[in-house]
Amino acid sequence: MKIIPSMSVEPAEVPEGASGMQIRWVIDQKAGAPNFAMRVVDIAPAGFTPLHKHEWEHEMYVIQGEGTMVSDDGEHKIRPGDAVFVPGGDLHQVRNMSGDLLRVMCLIPNLEKNC
Amino acid sequence: MKIIPSMSVEPAEVPEGASGMQIRWVIDQKAGAPNFAMRVVDIAPAGFTPLHKHEWEHEMYVIQGEGTMVSDDGEHKIRPGDAVFVPGGDLHQVRNMSGDLLRVMCLIPNLEKNC
Repeated sequence: MKIIPSMSVEPAEVPEGASGMQIRWVIDQKAGAPNFAMRVVDIAPAGFTPLHKHEWEHEMYVIQGEGTMVSDDGEHKIRPGDAVFVPGGDLHQVRNMSGDLLRVMCLIPNLEKNC
Repeated sequence: MKIIPSMSVEPAEVPEGASGMQIRWVIDQKAGAPNFAMRVVDIAPAGFTPLHKHEWEHEMYVIQGEGTMVSDDGEHKIRPGDAVFVPGGDLHQVRNMSGDLLRVMCLIPNLEKNC
């Protein structure tokens, strides 16, 4: 087994349309994970992830801080302990409207597997 | 999207060989997740998950508390923010040697997909 202190992972490039966002790929294919990848996403106060959609799903979990999920049907508050399932094709964005760091886990399937 | 407060989920039956363990399936196939499932596992002081191995992998993350991962190569301390990758086939167990609750996330692939 591998134990990876998540903050020891170097942040990766963030996607276009993000602000105040850091993303760390803590468990991925390079670590030997065959089916899905775990990323830890930090969003600074007033920051946000891109407002976008794609064909794959997200499974998310709020580790620290409070924020807002934006979707087709409006805005939804999220807080520590909340899990969020974003099905493939759904519009989504995470926004940090608070004065403190928002840290969420965000998992995606292995996009190279066509099944 | 679905927002699921993880502690609102009813604990499921725990596997044989566990003690002081609760498991909540917060995102799974019933919620529409096609590729992998998110479970939140609580381990009470002196509690443990089964010492076992299986063909599928785990991706884990320590949310709260301190504990010990047991593997073929000994014992490893885990603390909040640590991610743990357990490849398929590796022996593993989570033990709570502390006086406080240990809460970990534990994800598994969809076992009905043979790919």
